[in-house]
Amino acid sequence: MAVRAAVIPAPGEAIEIRTFPDPVLEPGAALLRTTYSEVCGTDVHLFHGRLAGVPYPLIPGHINVGAIEALGGRATDAFGDPLAEGETVTFLDVHGTCNACWYCLVAKATTRCPHRRVYGITYGADEGLLGGWSAKIHLKPGVKIIRLPEGLTPEIAIAGGCALPTAFHAIERGGVGLGDTVVIQGSGPVGLMACALARLSGAQKVIVIGAPAARLGMAKKLGADAIVSIESASEDERLAAIRDLTHGRGADITIEATGNPRAVREGLRMTRDAGIYVIVGQYTDAGSVEIEPHLDINRKHLDIRATWGIDFSHFHRSLHTLARFRDAFPWCDIISRFYALDEAAQALADVEGGRAVKAVLCPNGRAASPIRP
Amino acid sequence: MAVRAAVIPAPGEAIEIRTFPDPVLEPGAALLRTTYSEVCGTDVHLFHGRLAGVPYPLIPGHINVGAIEALGGRATDAFGDPLAEGETVTFLDVHGTCNACWYCLVAKATTRCPHRRVYGITYGADEGLLGGWSAKIHLKPGVKIIRLPEGLTPEIAIAGGCALPTAFHAIERGGVGLGDTVVIQGSGPVGLMACALARLSGAQKVIVIGAPAARLGMAKKLGADAIVSIESASEDERLAAIRDLTHGRGADITIEATGNPRAVREGLRMTRDAGIYVIVGQYTDAGSVEIEPHLDINRKHLDIRATWGIDFSHFHRSLHTLARFRDAFPWCDIISRFYALDEAAQALADVEGGRAVKAVLCPNGRAASPIRP
Amino acid sequence: MAVRAAVIPAPGEAIEIRTFPDPVLEPGAALLRTTYSEVCGTDVHLFHGRLAGVPYPLIPGHINVGAIEALGGRATDAFGDPLAEGETVTFLDVHGTCNACWYCLVAKATTRCPHRRVYGITYGADEGLLGGWSAKIHLKPGVKIIRLPEGLTPEIAIAGGCALPTAFHAIERGGVGLGDTVVIQGSGPVGLMACALARLSGAQKVIVIGAPAARLGMAKKLGADAIVSIESASEDERLAAIRDLTHGRGADITIEATGNPRAVREGLRMTRDAGIYVIVGQYTDAGSVEIEPHLDINRKHLDIRATWGIDFSHFHRSLHTLARFRDAFPWCDIISRFYALDEAAQALADVEGGRAVKAVLCPNGRAASPIRP
Amino acid sequence: MAVRAAVIPAPGEAIEIRTFPDPVLEPGAALLRTTYSEVCGTDVHLFHGRLAGVPYPLIPGHINVGAIEALGGRATDAFGDPLAEGETVTFLDVHGTCNACWYCLVAKATTRCPHRRVYGITYGADEGLLGGWSAKIHLKPGVKIIRLPEGLTPEIAIAGGCALPTAFHAIERGGVGLGDTVVIQGSGPVGLMACALARLSGAQKVIVIGAPAARLGMAKKLGADAIVSIESASEDERLAAIRDLTHGRGADITIEATGNPRAVREGLRMTRDAGIYVIVGQYTDAGSVEIEPHLDINRKHLDIRATWGIDFSHFHRSLHTLARFRDAFPWCDIISRFYALDEAAQALADVEGGRAVKAVLCPNGRAASPIRP
Repeated sequence: MAVRAAVIPAPGEAIEIRTFPDPVLEPGAALLRTTYSEVCGTDVHLFHGRLAGVPYPLIPGHINVGAIEALGGRATDAFGDPLAEGETVTFLDVHGTCNACWYCLVAKATTRCPHRRVYGITYGADEGLLGGWSAKIHLKPGVKIIRLPEGLTPEIAIAGGCALPTAFHAIERGGVGLGDTVVIQGSGPVGLMACALARLSGAQKVIVIGAPAARLGMAKKLGADAIVSIESASEDERLAAIRDLTHGRGADITIEATGNPRAVREGLRMTRDAGIYVIVGQYTDAGSVEIEPHLDINRKHLDIRATWGIDFSHFHRSLHTLARFRDAFPWCDIISRFYALDEAAQALADVEGGRAVKAVLCPNGRAASPIRP
Repeated sequence: MAVRAAVIPAPGEAIEIRTFPDPVLEPGAALLRTTYSEVCGTDVHLFHGRLAGVPYPLIPGHINVGAIEALGGRATDAFGDPLAEGETVTFLDVHGTCNACWYCLVAKATTRCPHRRVYGITYGADEGLLGGWSAKIHLKPGVKIIRLPEGLTPEIAIAGGCALPTAFHAIERGGVGLGDTVVIQGSGPVGLMACALARLSGAQKVIVIGAPAARLGMAKKLGADAIVSIESASEDERLAAIRDLTHGRGADITIEATGNPRAVREGLRMTRDAGIYVIVGQYTDAGSVEIEPHLDINRKHLDIRATWGIDFSHFHRSLHTLARFRDAFPWCDIISRFYALDEAAQALADVEGGRAVKAVLCPNGRAASPIRP
Repeated sequence: MAVRAAVIPAPGEAIEIRTFPDPVLEPGAALLRTTYSEVCGTDVHLFHGRLAGVPYPLIPGHINVGAIEALGGRATDAFGDPLAEGETVTFLDVHGTCNACWYCLVAKATTRCPHRRVYGITYGADEGLLGGWSAKIHLKPGVKIIRLPEGLTPEIAIAGGCALPTAFHAIERGGVGLGDTVVIQGSGPVGLMACALARLSGAQKVIVIGAPAARLGMAKKLGADAIVSIESASEDERLAAIRDLTHGRGADITIEATGNPRAVREGLRMTRDAGIYVIVGQYTDAGSVEIEPHLDINRKHLDIRATWGIDFSHFHRSLHTLARFRDAFPWCDIISRFYALDEAAQALADVEGGRAVKAVLCPNGRAASPIRP
Repeated sequence: MAVRAAVIPAPGEAIEIRTFPDPVLEPGAALLRTTYSEVCGTDVHLFHGRLAGVPYPLIPGHINVGAIEALGGRATDAFGDPLAEGETVTFLDVHGTCNACWYCLVAKATTRCPHRRVYGITYGADEGLLGGWSAKIHLKPGVKIIRLPEGLTPEIAIAGGCALPTAFHAIERGGVGLGDTVVIQGSGPVGLMACALARLSGAQKVIVIGAPAARLGMAKKLGADAIVSIESASEDERLAAIRDLTHGRGADITIEATGNPRAVREGLRMTRDAGIYVIVGQYTDAGSVEIEPHLDINRKHLDIRATWGIDFSHFHRSLHTLARFRDAFPWCDIISRFYALDEAAQALADVEGGRAVKAVLCPNGRAASPIRP
């Protein structure tokens, strides 16, 4: 049976729907019937060809939820527990971390393993159904599959999306805990999830800086104590606002989740002396920024901690955190709209245009929803 | 009896010798007869007025060795052990860390305590004999005095100077240990001491980048496995050299000890993915540098750790380390020349002109030595 | 005017009410009119003479809330902000941490400073009104005073009591955060506060082991996901219960808050391989326990972290955490009864007899309340 | 061709030489011609059947050096670099860490992975030539092979043996560095290697406690500053000796490498307040010890860190450390004697009887050496 998928033929070329044959499942593989696939900022970059090492044509969609439709003999979840047809699962988009290179074995920096491949990003359509904007996804042997934890609906899981484990990693890097005042730069999905997770970690105060108003409103729904709009406040005013909210000292921990290089300088200045500055938003090369190492870093005795990618622990723990705190926030309000597969181009445009905080594709259909700003 | 001291009257004004009355010692104070006082890069900055919060006229000289000449009743070393006249001591230049502010008590970031004062830097001549370019130094109550550990001569102690505890702090921030490949940017006193301490910490390989040749030769004497000259190698060539020396990966830990903002960008690029970049050289505002947060920091998953000032633990431990490893290196070779007090201006000029790696004043006389390049 | 205080004349001797003269306030001192003083397990130990270094006669009461009644000239809070008469404050019972010994300066282990004194414990009545079971308390210069944070009532503050900052320190030592399964041994005030703080830190699951039923009920009110009674379950059953609740692995982090040496062996066995075991309850010498280092510690690759005392950061941060999460739990339900000063002996007996989880003295009167089990 | 190997038929049964057929090499496997195989304390335990999960008959020998004799097609070293016949290599005895279980993926505690198998310990002779007391060893695909780093002879590599990476792990757990006073309990191979590595890490003072005199002499050769004999000093005298050597405080870091449960109590008491106690010697169940949690742990505010097994990073880094510091110590003096394969029982008896610090088997012959006490 033919499988329909949305494909980016080449950087900048219009998305088109193509059909692919059903994959042949090797032993240990599984076939997923896609319920939801996320459309995120990375997909916008992929569309414009801004990431290195991406093979086109490409079926995007790295974070997905679906139901097991078929199994290649005995296939298991990440911990070796056998899967059954019909089970609702998600999976870590990163595949093939080698556990056999210097970065994996000596540095223990597995997110920098050069052999890792990513569904929907570094696996191209020529290699198979390896992206989520498709009615079915071929889960190769070794893909880290997780059953949705008890109480976690597919909707909440996709609301967390790829932003949730990414933010989880950032929170871990920052060591956010009781007593900490946390500033989050950026109100996109990663910033919003960092807001929620900082709140759940017991932070003393959580401040989100971003725009537009709808996203800042979402930040409030996800636990922000204060918000600062970059539309209505200049950089100086923003710095002053943070000082006012932090006894004149700045944040204990600032988490950058903007993708804008200039945010780095501003964020360093928003962090208190001997504080921690976590960079998690600089995922593509958006240029440079001028900083003053003496004033912005050394005299402040800062710790700056970059956050590249996620490993399985972040994926696993963030999903369980989401299940536990399912009722703490209206998580699904972050989903601006559900789109049919045929609307993939529209979904991407809505994300790029800032009309959607988060767009979700339903490759096997679902009543399309009105956009929520 | 009048005390002679070298004074910077005001920023940029010629150093002059002035005389001061003997201080009246309050209870708990001590009077030090200065044997050696260091002339370091900070003093060059002080001469040009590049540091904020410095009161002039100023008696420079923050790191000093001397003999107790008089005591204000019962005066003690840092741990409360009573001092006796004639004992050879040194003391922590930082005085008055309050232990009663948010930074001291909650953040435990005592080097950012706003109440700390520094001998030879933020104490001016109008407040007394509070700098080491003077025949005598007034050690106020609470000054952290240390007897030279057994086996440590005044010459070796001043060879360590203020660079040694500063480098000790940087090594601690970087967590240097067995197996680590360490790149040190800068071959001034801090870089050279970081080189020696990295070597003593069991680092697998220590590479020093700097100039001129004489300083790099000193680096070799202090344990460097490899040196890279910034005079003969361009930035690209230096990066290539580091890659060649590090299996193509970059350093596990890079320590910046240059004071040049541009070194920060270069150093980030010399550090391996998931490595550690320690900033310790950016002690005055020397301007800005353009960095690419995505390429230079986030995609590399770096830790950047700034290092401001020292606390007593760094001073204490580095002196004991120096005593223990007294014979490991020819420490005193770092001292380019001993100068009489009247030669203070010349000493400063030699440091600024790069003719002296380290210049040492002998405020109470000593046969002047020829300069050692 | 005479000040009434409850005094333990000597170990084991009946508590009596004595009167003392109003203290003469030296510059920087303050006089506190005591609103509430806690009666805690430590006071039971003090009554029986189980702590070394305690001078009798003793006015117990180390954690207190009150109103400033008089000032010795300019007196300030811990950060140097001047106090005014009538303000409601609390203060850190630990006084005189020296900041001038090897433990303070080099090890940075200030809770092991040999010079620290403690109100209500190591300051005796012969030295003045230095305990809270007294209508007034003499706050010496240097005592770390904190105004109650906004929104924090004296009742909630005393409900937190000394258990709150102690538990805060334990949570910090354990590094409790999102995703962690936490077992807490003990349902006394420290265990209960650890339960609440683990919950507020975002722990995935919080399990409290203790007795009697009323305290375990309080644990549920303070966020416990599960409780295990030591009255109804044997040690083997308790271990089995923990395994059942933790996927067969044991807790990521176990916090011992019992004071019973045997709990240590049991708790090690309740912790998963490569987990963390925090000891915070072993505050007096209650004897020994037999452990098997191979099975209980090494083969499990455990981290064991002891927790002695608190420093100002724990006191400060825990109070602000309490203020922030004032409405998260019915904190005051931990207070079993308020007692008049004359009922001090009864309060102590109720604590020792397990009839009161927490007893609170009202040295200046308050309608006595019925006991809450 | 038949391969000769020394076999423990069953717990307690006399070692016998058996012959095995040459293994058939699957793709990715390699055949090692054994140059040296270590006889260590673990082998004594294996002989007596003291470890759980060991299949008999068993070819012991977990740490080995040899030459590649044959390859199953393309076989590589641990980092994927193809191997050639004749190369001198060693390999990590741990095989099959799964990278697919909760311990590997979430806890990142790979030494507690339940799927790991160990050459010479948990692989039995019925599964093939999977121990080093054999002329040849079958290196299965996935075994982590390391070429000897430049300058490292097979003799020095086997002198390091399994004790070196184990001690490396312990040093890492303890965070030994400049300024630290380190006490090491035990003068067997692990204690001696910990001594050498502590010295190389720049420790301020290294003290080894053990017996007999010959081993303590070896400790001096490997950098010990002081030694304490358990033969001539009672426990009280040993504690007093440590206090005398540590300004009355105890060690900053104590490393237990004895295997004797009673050493744990003694070692806790030898550690300074707020110090670190590393357990690495408790590798088999040698019973229990009585400790006082209040006095021995909590009042001292200790960190206790257990050390189970090693991962590849410890193996890799310790070998490179050994190569770098090849000339720092007479490493090979730790080898008491080289033995022919037929002398395996004698080698084991010499280790058990304390006549040999380290015994080395030469399965393919070598002139037998006289025993060195």
